Amino acid sequence: MTERILIINPNSTQEITDHMSAALEAFRFPGGPQLVCETLRSGPPGIETQAHVDAATANLIEWFEQVPERKRADAAVIGCFSDPGIVALRERLTMPIFGMGASSYLTAAALGDRFGVISVVSAAVRRHKRAIRALGLTDQLAGDLAIDLSVVELSNEDAAWKRLVAVGQKLRDDCGAAVVILGCAGMARYRSRLEQNLGVAVIEPTQAATGMALTAVLARRGAAAANRRAG
Amino acid sequence: MTERILIINPNSTQEITDHMSAALEAFRFPGGPQLVCETLRSGPPGIETQAHVDAATANLIEWFEQVPERKRADAAVIGCFSDPGIVALRERLTMPIFGMGASSYLTAAALGDRFGVISVVSAAVRRHKRAIRALGLTDQLAGDLAIDLSVVELSNEDAAWKRLVAVGQKLRDDCGAAVVILGCAGMARYRSRLEQNLGVAVIEPTQAATGMALTAVLARRGAAAANRRAG
Amino acid sequence: MTERILIINPNSTQEITDHMSAALEAFRFPGGPQLVCETLRSGPPGIETQAHVDAATANLIEWFEQVPERKRADAAVIGCFSDPGIVALRERLTMPIFGMGASSYLTAAALGDRFGVISVVSAAVRRHKRAIRALGLTDQLAGDLAIDLSVVELSNEDAAWKRLVAVGQKLRDDCGAAVVILGCAGMARYRSRLEQNLGVAVIEPTQAATGMALTAVLARRGAAAANRRAG
Amino acid sequence: MTERILIINPNSTQEITDHMSAALEAFRFPGGPQLVCETLRSGPPGIETQAHVDAATANLIEWFEQVPERKRADAAVIGCFSDPGIVALRERLTMPIFGMGASSYLTAAALGDRFGVISVVSAAVRRHKRAIRALGLTDQLAGDLAIDLSVVELSNEDAAWKRLVAVGQKLRDDCGAAVVILGCAGMARYRSRLEQNLGVAVIEPTQAATGMALTAVLARRGAAAANRRAG
Amino acid sequence: MTERILIINPNSTQEITDHMSAALEAFRFPGGPQLVCETLRSGPPGIETQAHVDAATANLIEWFEQVPERKRADAAVIGCFSDPGIVALRERLTMPIFGMGASSYLTAAALGDRFGVISVVSAAVRRHKRAIRALGLTDQLAGDLAIDLSVVELSNEDAAWKRLVAVGQKLRDDCGAAVVILGCAGMARYRSRLEQNLGVAVIEPTQAATGMALTAVLARRGAAAANRRAG
Amino acid sequence: MTERILIINPNSTQEITDHMSAALEAFRFPGGPQLVCETLRSGPPGIETQAHVDAATANLIEWFEQVPERKRADAAVIGCFSDPGIVALRERLTMPIFGMGASSYLTAAALGDRFGVISVVSAAVRRHKRAIRALGLTDQLAGDLAIDLSVVELSNEDAAWKRLVAVGQKLRDDCGAAVVILGCAGMARYRSRLEQNLGVAVIEPTQAATGMALTAVLARRGAAAANRRAG
Repeated sequence: MTERILIINPNSTQEITDHMSAALEAFRFPGGPQLVCETLRSGPPGIETQAHVDAATANLIEWFEQVPERKRADAAVIGCFSDPGIVALRERLTMPIFGMGASSYLTAAALGDRFGVISVVSAAVRRHKRAIRALGLTDQLAGDLAIDLSVVELSNEDAAWKRLVAVGQKLRDDCGAAVVILGCAGMARYRSRLEQNLGVAVIEPTQAATGMALTAVLARRGAAAANRRAG
Repeated sequence: MTERILIINPNSTQEITDHMSAALEAFRFPGGPQLVCETLRSGPPGIETQAHVDAATANLIEWFEQVPERKRADAAVIGCFSDPGIVALRERLTMPIFGMGASSYLTAAALGDRFGVISVVSAAVRRHKRAIRALGLTDQLAGDLAIDLSVVELSNEDAAWKRLVAVGQKLRDDCGAAVVILGCAGMARYRSRLEQNLGVAVIEPTQAATGMALTAVLARRGAAAANRRAG
Repeated sequence: MTERILIINPNSTQEITDHMSAALEAFRFPGGPQLVCETLRSGPPGIETQAHVDAATANLIEWFEQVPERKRADAAVIGCFSDPGIVALRERLTMPIFGMGASSYLTAAALGDRFGVISVVSAAVRRHKRAIRALGLTDQLAGDLAIDLSVVELSNEDAAWKRLVAVGQKLRDDCGAAVVILGCAGMARYRSRLEQNLGVAVIEPTQAATGMALTAVLARRGAAAANRRAG
Repeated sequence: MTERILIINPNSTQEITDHMSAALEAFRFPGGPQLVCETLRSGPPGIETQAHVDAATANLIEWFEQVPERKRADAAVIGCFSDPGIVALRERLTMPIFGMGASSYLTAAALGDRFGVISVVSAAVRRHKRAIRALGLTDQLAGDLAIDLSVVELSNEDAAWKRLVAVGQKLRDDCGAAVVILGCAGMARYRSRLEQNLGVAVIEPTQAATGMALTAVLARRGAAAANRRAG
Repeated sequence: MTERILIINPNSTQEITDHMSAALEAFRFPGGPQLVCETLRSGPPGIETQAHVDAATANLIEWFEQVPERKRADAAVIGCFSDPGIVALRERLTMPIFGMGASSYLTAAALGDRFGVISVVSAAVRRHKRAIRALGLTDQLAGDLAIDLSVVELSNEDAAWKRLVAVGQKLRDDCGAAVVILGCAGMARYRSRLEQNLGVAVIEPTQAATGMALTAVLARRGAAAANRRAG
Repeated sequence: MTERILIINPNSTQEITDHMSAALEAFRFPGGPQLVCETLRSGPPGIETQAHVDAATANLIEWFEQVPERKRADAAVIGCFSDPGIVALRERLTMPIFGMGASSYLTAAALGDRFGVISVVSAAVRRHKRAIRALGLTDQLAGDLAIDLSVVELSNEDAAWKRLVAVGQKLRDDCGAAVVILGCAGMARYRSRLEQNLGVAVIEPTQAATGMALTAVLARRGAAAANRRAG
């Protein structure tokens, strides 16, 4: 029977969920765990303030309670770079749960040296620094710079691309970043192009967190297979 | 065309490479990246001292030089918990390279709170602490305790299992570990059983590092697919 | 006109609000700021899980929105040691806002050396350690030990007292704590007795946070007075 | 009977003591603790060098010894941003003792995010950084910049104000400070104006430290009152 | 012309100065810098409290002022493990100045891994921890344990030796110290014996600090010689 | 009988060994330990990459094994700022072993405040930051800047000097370095001139590490002398 990994977008914008799902296309394979991307209809259109972050917890819990099957999934990814609800869900659910922010920072640290973060808005920088400090990775943070585009401008691919390149180059050249993190789930489609442009690894948070969830699920499957073989 | 991830055991003991390969069985899937587990014949039977760790670098570099195809792999995992040669290989190769130690510590941090490490021998504890300090994760280390069995005793599954359980329980109960890391590539077959016994997540380093490599490779594949779709 | 400091108990148990108000009796003086202790009727009976912590944010915001006058207070104290909603309220309100947890840790650090924390339940220890790490005070934490009494037992003053003394002495003697923090708003009535028993300073979180709020309010008043004098 | 809090200016300049006393005007209230601001006649005109800082200890101890009543005060504030003599006094006196520097840094941390410091002279910056590092708050320091005015220029309010604004704006805009600390006891009269100009909280050290002392004293008074009520 | 290194015992006990001088016997050589051990007659018999530490600054400054020649020495060592006056002297003198405490901690860190400290009295442990934290070496501190003997008992060599061995073994075996520091200038005569008994390096503070001073002086001499050769 | 300190240049360039030996001229004295500077003929012309660093371990071990007398030396200094082989040698040899990098950083910390590093090439900066982080000294690093001259240009004394001064001044003025470290063993001949030019202490790594080795050797000699006297 196939395992399920739930990737839960805590905002109500289906388009972002679709972006996430597209970013994970290569993570689906025959016989592999199902990657189910879901939208929290009860959430706000975007998780922009700390109030949104905190409110997501109740929405996420309620969402799990509504359909008992959900609590029997094999792993979950919280689809927001601010990792809303992650501690609360861990207290209630036994499946492993991954946040996009922490997974990205820690994957960057696994890739080597100091990393930079591209934030959507300046207001997020402070939140990121708190999270990075709590993980103990402050010394590895080369810099966190915002592209400071409105959500509308973000949807203008040309404008967004120009700012991503400018900020990415600044992180690489002025701050000494050897890895760059896209600080938001909605920029997946630029990952590869930006990596080629900058010549340093670029981490996309949906993939970073889901990769960790996939690893956790496959690790268990390996054990089951081994048990069967041994039996 | 299929990507390749090289998992390179820097010691010459084929049996350990076989254990690694078995631990990764579930990470292989139709159409997925090849997971090629290789043994460094030029290495010592085991990486036990810092001299072994340092010497592994030249062996690893030579191994990559011997067959040009190897340098064209898509990612590499260094199959030893001490992450030998990782900085040197990063200076010479463009593929992403993951170490088992760092990947395990960082995966544990992604899973939540404080983690414990089960070392094979006490002498390794100091080395682990240095690595954890360099990553900035000292505050998240609940404890690092050795089972202190000889390699021969390790091959006695009953004896090894008893020590693993005793040390794991101590890490969980006395040290407050919420996650336990198996501090050696050769204990994969106990992962699942130990996780069930302890009731906390247990991380196996071959899987932790290869999961990160798999994520890196699939992330790029996703981009290629997206480019094709867009084309 | 008199300033107002709101001390908001985010749980719905009026008795705890009454304890807080009693703990602040000496902080009220003729002509001084009003200390208004309020109970969030919409909250749970106790803030026990991270889900409670996160849910408190929306309750707190709603509470401020219900009566516009509230947003015009001069300072606010969030009446729970887990500091729920503190970042979110800071994003929305211009008044200074203090959390009981952070205020207690930082007041302990101001008093001198390493501090210990008496937690109500073991489950809270991990949460405290995260908060202390985020503040940068990990090296000053001598220890965090739980009395592990049920809420019912807590209301048995004899049982509670015995455990408080035992845990406090352990923090002082075995952990080297020079200051002890009561890790919960409901233990104010033991503060003085425990301080006398242990011979080290004991910090009560309602007082620590309200003291900081009082300071912030009086500082502004001082400026107003100076302006008047100068006028 | 009324408690006494001693605010001891370790330099011999009465005018600075007067400034401190003025800064505390609002902290005096009917029935409240006496706030007694004293000048150490034996001190130098200003605490400018580390030699002055260290020498203050003996002066402070002698001052307490001269009049036994002083040692029976309820709390003490050392009226200098370098916290001279604080550890030594704690070893000899049982009353709680607060330093202006540590109290300011810790109060800033209680208010939220990263803080900036306005130093009088560049030479002080290094001393501040040492103190902040010892407290564990280095990651929360946004910046420490000096106005670099002579004591004479400082007394020219226009010149001082211009530099304070310029440095404060730089801390806020270039360094990302969300709170600004006045790094000297003699700038109290600018606090309010600067707070309004910058739109971020501005902390004045006399008030920060005395507020903590007031809290400590009132906390004990609360206990006494509770004991009387219970009696 | 021969350089001079001043080793200044800030307490008035000549016997301790004699011990220091004996500890440095091997650091004197024909043509080498003079090692002049001096006793501060104005100091207390022992530097035991923080008040003693702080008061030493003025004594040290006065001592340098009394004889102008002293200020022309080539380096100075402050002969007390608490490093009294070190910052103040650096502000006034241009020669390099070394403290016994900091030099010992940093020399231990240079020798490899985690170090333990043997304190004379428990009261000193807290002071050491502050100093180690300020240097950034907290993670390398394996433990700090006191022998807790009175000064009289200390002079009983048998009693002192027994406690030194017991505490040293505990640091090595229970705390994992790979290096042990004698936390007081008066224990030099046990260094070698203890090193042999414990089988780990034992650092004596007079030697650690004077060794650093000697290095600084010889480094300059080397330059002079090179200049002469080149000339 | 005279002790021997081995200073082992792990690269094969005799000229650099000669520079080291010249830098140590003043550290040799009648009756003092022999300072034997050796060139590892098996090494590369320069230690430039991490592969070189790691490969040095085997060369160093082999060198010690070739002549048993070498293992009986009294201390060793690894003559390269990257401290190659230091952990491995410590596992195999009982003599104290010092690295030039760690010794320089720790000596700088002993001299007082924040230090700057002058690197030869930018690529080394990252390696230094890792080493400094592992030692816990990140907060004391004022900056690390490269002169970025080729080895050929380095041998042009005029060009090298100009860059050293420019980088040193930037470290002092813009970064606030109170001490400057020459980040390479080959710049000893500039130490004194640069110190005079900058007016801050300049540390040369050969001297820093050998000074620590000398201290360790003399400390033992002192004990022997004391034992003889006592006998």
